[in-house]
Amino acid sequence: MTGEEIMFTSNNTPLEDFKKAKELGAIINFDDISHIPYFLENIGEIGEVTCCRYNPGPLKKGNAFIGKPEEAKYGMTREQLFEAYDLLKKSGVKRFGLHTMVASNELNPMYFVETAKLLFELILEIEQKLNINFEFVNLGGGIGIPYKPAEKKVNFKLISKEIKKIYKKMFISRKKQLNIYVEMGRMITGPYGYLVTKVLHKKNIYKNYIGTDASMADLMRPGMYGAYHHISILDNKNEINKEIFDVTGSLCENNDKFAIDRRLPKNIEIGDLLVIHDVGAHGHAMGFNYNAKLRPAELLLKENGKFKLIRRAETLEDYFATLV
Amino acid sequence: MTGEEIMFTSNNTPLEDFKKAKELGAIINFDDISHIPYFLENIGEIGEVTCCRYNPGPLKKGNAFIGKPEEAKYGMTREQLFEAYDLLKKSGVKRFGLHTMVASNELNPMYFVETAKLLFELILEIEQKLNINFEFVNLGGGIGIPYKPAEKKVNFKLISKEIKKIYKKMFISRKKQLNIYVEMGRMITGPYGYLVTKVLHKKNIYKNYIGTDASMADLMRPGMYGAYHHISILDNKNEINKEIFDVTGSLCENNDKFAIDRRLPKNIEIGDLLVIHDVGAHGHAMGFNYNAKLRPAELLLKENGKFKLIRRAETLEDYFATLV
Repeated sequence: MTGEEIMFTSNNTPLEDFKKAKELGAIINFDDISHIPYFLENIGEIGEVTCCRYNPGPLKKGNAFIGKPEEAKYGMTREQLFEAYDLLKKSGVKRFGLHTMVASNELNPMYFVETAKLLFELILEIEQKLNINFEFVNLGGGIGIPYKPAEKKVNFKLISKEIKKIYKKMFISRKKQLNIYVEMGRMITGPYGYLVTKVLHKKNIYKNYIGTDASMADLMRPGMYGAYHHISILDNKNEINKEIFDVTGSLCENNDKFAIDRRLPKNIEIGDLLVIHDVGAHGHAMGFNYNAKLRPAELLLKENGKFKLIRRAETLEDYFATLV
Repeated sequence: MTGEEIMFTSNNTPLEDFKKAKELGAIINFDDISHIPYFLENIGEIGEVTCCRYNPGPLKKGNAFIGKPEEAKYGMTREQLFEAYDLLKKSGVKRFGLHTMVASNELNPMYFVETAKLLFELILEIEQKLNINFEFVNLGGGIGIPYKPAEKKVNFKLISKEIKKIYKKMFISRKKQLNIYVEMGRMITGPYGYLVTKVLHKKNIYKNYIGTDASMADLMRPGMYGAYHHISILDNKNEINKEIFDVTGSLCENNDKFAIDRRLPKNIEIGDLLVIHDVGAHGHAMGFNYNAKLRPAELLLKENGKFKLIRRAETLEDYFATLV
C-alpha cells in the first residue's frame, strides 16, 4: 500500500511517526488540534488531503469495551474541529476527511448507524460554516465479532441499508459524493486465528483447574480485560458431562487464565489439545515475555489445506538478545 | 546460585522446568499434589529435600492485590498437604519445607505475622501426625513497597519481633531450629528502577493530557491493574500550581495511561523529563511490543555515580526477528 491508500491514525504522536507518514504520502488523521501547528513547524506542509479525529464526548455514550468517549484520550472536541479545519484550510489543505472511533467490539448494528448520522450532521455544519468540502468520512472500526457461541455476527446489510437511507436524505442536493471509509481490523483478523495448546495438568483444590502449556504471554485479553474466548477440545470427547474449570497458564499471576468458571467436558485429560478461538486480533501481537515465557510459532493454513510456518517460535537467544 | 540456594516455585509446571530444577539440584516446591506422582513417574527421585506450597483457602482472607486464596490457582489444600508429605516421606524425602504466598504488595506487617503463625501451627500438626521434621518454613513474599508518597515502608523489625515471640512460644521444646525463609522480590528491586520519559504533547479535550514517549510497552502495571506509580518532574519546576492530568502513552488502547487524574505541576511543558518511580519490579520484565512499540534500553547507576548500559534498546530487527 502506498500514498492515500494509507490512513495514518495515531495519538500522542512521535515526530518520527509523522515524518514517516508524510514520506509515504499517507493521509494524516490529526488526533489533536495542537498536532497541526506541531506538524507545520517541525515537518512542513501537510499536503493536499487530510483528516481530523472527532471525540464526541458526552454526545455519544460509548460502548462497554471502549468506555465513555469523554474519558478517552483520542480525538478533538466539536469546538476544536471547527478551529482545526479552519487552520488546515488556511495552511493549504484542499481535500478534507472526518474520522471518529467510538466503539470497540460492538455487535449492535444501529450503534454504527447512529455514529454515521452524527458525523454526517457535523460535516454539513462544518462545510457550511467554513466553506469547505468533505471528500470522505471515516466511521472508524469497532465492529465486534461473536466471541460467544450465542452471539451473532454483525448484520452489515442492515448497517449499509440504514446508512444509505440517512445519506440520501441528508445529502440529496450534494454534487460530489462523500466517500465512506471504515476500519475493520478485528473483524477481518480476529475469527481466523486459533491458539492450540496442550493440557499439562489437572488440579483440584478450592476450584477445578486445567493447566495448559500456553499462558497470558500468548493471549492477554482474558487476563487483561476478562474477555471471553471460546475453548473447544480437538479430540472428539463426550461433551455431555460437563464440569466447571478455570483454564490457566503457568505465570506467577493469578490473572493468567484463559477462562474462569467455564463449563467444559469433565473427561478432559492431560495431553488433550485445546483450541482457543478468535485470537487472530490482539493475540500474538499483544503477547509479552513475562516470567521469561517465550512466544509461540504461527502457522498459516493455506487454501490448499497445507500449513506454512510464518513465524518461528522464540528462543532463549531472542529473549536475551538485548542484554549487554 | 546452585543447588539448595535455589528454591523452585512454579505452578502448572512444564516437565522441562522440573527437569531443569532437578538438574540444578534446586529445592522443588510442589504446587499441587498431582505433581508428586508426575515428577516420580516422569523424572525420578525427588532428592533429599523438598517443599510443598500451601493454599489456606478460606482460612486466610488474602489481600487487595492477590485476591482471595480460594480463588487462586496456587498451592494445595490442608487435607492435600497431609497426603503430600506422607507421599514424599514414603518416596524417600528426608528434609521438609512448607511454603505459602498469600499476599502481594502488602504493607501491613501484622499480615505476615499472622501468616507465620498459620504455618507454624500447621507444621506442628503435620510433624505430629506424620512423624516427620520440618527443616524450614518459607513465608513467601508479598512485602509491599510504598508506591504512594503517603505510604510507609513495611516495618521489618516489628515483623521480626512478633514472629520471634510466636516462634519461642510454640517451639520452646524444639531441638533443631526451624529455618525461616522469605521471598523479597518486589522489595529488593521495585524501588530501584525508574522510567524516564519525555513529554511529547499536551492535550486539552474533556480532560487534560500529558503525552509521553513511553507507553504501556515499558510499564504495564497502571494499565493492567490501575496501579499507582509516583511521577515527578526532573526539572526544578514550580510545584505550587497544580492541575489534574492523565499521563498517557501512544498505544491504541485507552488504558495506556501511567496516571489518571493525577495532580501535577501546571507548567509541565513539551520536552520536560518525567520520572516514573518504582518500576524496578514488573517494569521492563512485563513489557510487550503491542502496536509495534520497541522496549527501551536500561542503564545501571553504579556506586561511583557512573552509568552502564545493561540492556540496549530494541530495534525493528528485533521486532521482526521471528517472522519467516
